Amino acid sequence: MEIKTYLNNQRLAVEGALEGYMLAAGVENGLFAAHVEAMRYSLFAGGKRIRPILCLAAAEAVGTRPELDADLLPIACALECIHTYSLIHDDLPAMDNDDMRRGKPTNHKLYGEAGAILAGDGLLTWAFDLLSGEESGLPPEKRLAIIHLIARAAGSLGMVGGQLLDISNEHKEFPFETLRAIHRSKTGALIMASILAGGVAAGADQGQKEALRCYGEQVGLAFQIVDDLLNATSTTAQLGKAAGSDACRGKATYPAYFGIEATRQKAEAAVEEAESALISFDAKADPLRAIARYIITRSH
Amino acid sequence: MEIKTYLNNQRLAVEGALEGYMLAAGVENGLFAAHVEAMRYSLFAGGKRIRPILCLAAAEAVGTRPELDADLLPIACALECIHTYSLIHDDLPAMDNDDMRRGKPTNHKLYGEAGAILAGDGLLTWAFDLLSGEESGLPPEKRLAIIHLIARAAGSLGMVGGQLLDISNEHKEFPFETLRAIHRSKTGALIMASILAGGVAAGADQGQKEALRCYGEQVGLAFQIVDDLLNATSTTAQLGKAAGSDACRGKATYPAYFGIEATRQKAEAAVEEAESALISFDAKADPLRAIARYIITRSH
Repeated sequence: MEIKTYLNNQRLAVEGALEGYMLAAGVENGLFAAHVEAMRYSLFAGGKRIRPILCLAAAEAVGTRPELDADLLPIACALECIHTYSLIHDDLPAMDNDDMRRGKPTNHKLYGEAGAILAGDGLLTWAFDLLSGEESGLPPEKRLAIIHLIARAAGSLGMVGGQLLDISNEHKEFPFETLRAIHRSKTGALIMASILAGGVAAGADQGQKEALRCYGEQVGLAFQIVDDLLNATSTTAQLGKAAGSDACRGKATYPAYFGIEATRQKAEAAVEEAESALISFDAKADPLRAIARYIITRSH
Repeated sequence: MEIKTYLNNQRLAVEGALEGYMLAAGVENGLFAAHVEAMRYSLFAGGKRIRPILCLAAAEAVGTRPELDADLLPIACALECIHTYSLIHDDLPAMDNDDMRRGKPTNHKLYGEAGAILAGDGLLTWAFDLLSGEESGLPPEKRLAIIHLIARAAGSLGMVGGQLLDISNEHKEFPFETLRAIHRSKTGALIMASILAGGVAAGADQGQKEALRCYGEQVGLAFQIVDDLLNATSTTAQLGKAAGSDACRGKATYPAYFGIEATRQKAEAAVEEAESALISFDAKADPLRAIARYIITRSH
């Protein structure tokens, strides 16, 4: 299957599931309507749904779960809720102070700072509601393990800690290793958790988990490098958010350390390593392989 | 046992456990030290630990768990992390804009707005890390049920939604029922979840859960009424935060609807109903009874 078709189908499945859960939770009604609207605005603002899709593809690669797995969809959707909350909080005036995201006003531009902080808090909490609720029929032990790895990745030693590292190191010089640590915690950890969650759900054995971990490490790296490249080389219209904002904020990036050309080569190398990590998997891992390859060709 | 001694012992046990988990998670080290310090600051800023204590006391009342239960402490601590995160976010300039809390500068006054937002995000996420990790030996099904009821209570239809309702209704007139809905979601839901989590952990049957729910409803109500009373009648030095701030912000409160004297009577009535709800429990529910009684005599 052509990767763009695959990604599109999976994205639509994830979005359909998100809509369904939100309706089922009854959160559209009554007193909390304004809050729910603020959450929905960012949740349905046109994300690529890469984390949920990686989660589903990793389960498929292990081979015991079908391509679209009803028991996995709540987990996939929870990952997207966590990702979306992190974007809402990162965009706040006290953080990156971004006015635009995916070509639309950021959450706080429409719902105010308080509304945006609470929309983020609500999405983060809702993720754990979905992970622990009756939407998934996976065995309790697996679900607990998945909740734990996602909480660990999203938390203070992962995404949240990484965001603080990122903003507190703006306009500072630091060794390349610190940049890797920022990337690994801020974006890498949740991407890794998405892939491992799919693996755990599908009952991956130790060797398969290790392979998925290597794949996740390299895919997360490629993803971040491409983000840096796009920020440095695209126009604002292409990006849907302010282009060149990294340089403007004095953020360390791959191009700042290595220049554009060497950075491109590093992205290519990461994708090749991601593919190598999957050597022991059969054709059911083709979507994971294609996603890795797609990352460096993606256009916004 | 005298209630103040009991509360003090339980508080110290909860704080000891919080310290232990934080050390065990290794979050004191390395790159994330500044972030962890911001979380610790609010976590150890002198809370009464009412939610964790209610959780432990509810399990004790059901009778199958000891007073200090190693398997329950991670759950009790997670509740405190969620409560603390909510205070940090509520105090932000975009929300209540409070400079003082418990006689100390609020989190953002020391760590900046970005640091405080992330400290809150980190504590919320850490709560689910604790709830799903290996700290508790409760069976997976029970833990999953507890995670779900806590996530539901803390989320968009509970605490988070209630906070938005609260701030978006400042300086507005609305019927008393709306005030009850704000209280029920903003503070009542997490207090209820704390009590039910203890009950579920201890294997409460349907009748016991129903009784705990009635108790929780009335204790949450008493707690909120007393908070309103203290805000209206105490000095800033007594409160540790700005006194009279509710009136100043145009927040609807019990005293504003009913006057001080009738409000006191309502608090007393709620405590009596809470005690009645426990009629079928034996002496092991005495701590729950004493806590209800203590709430209306508490001084800051």
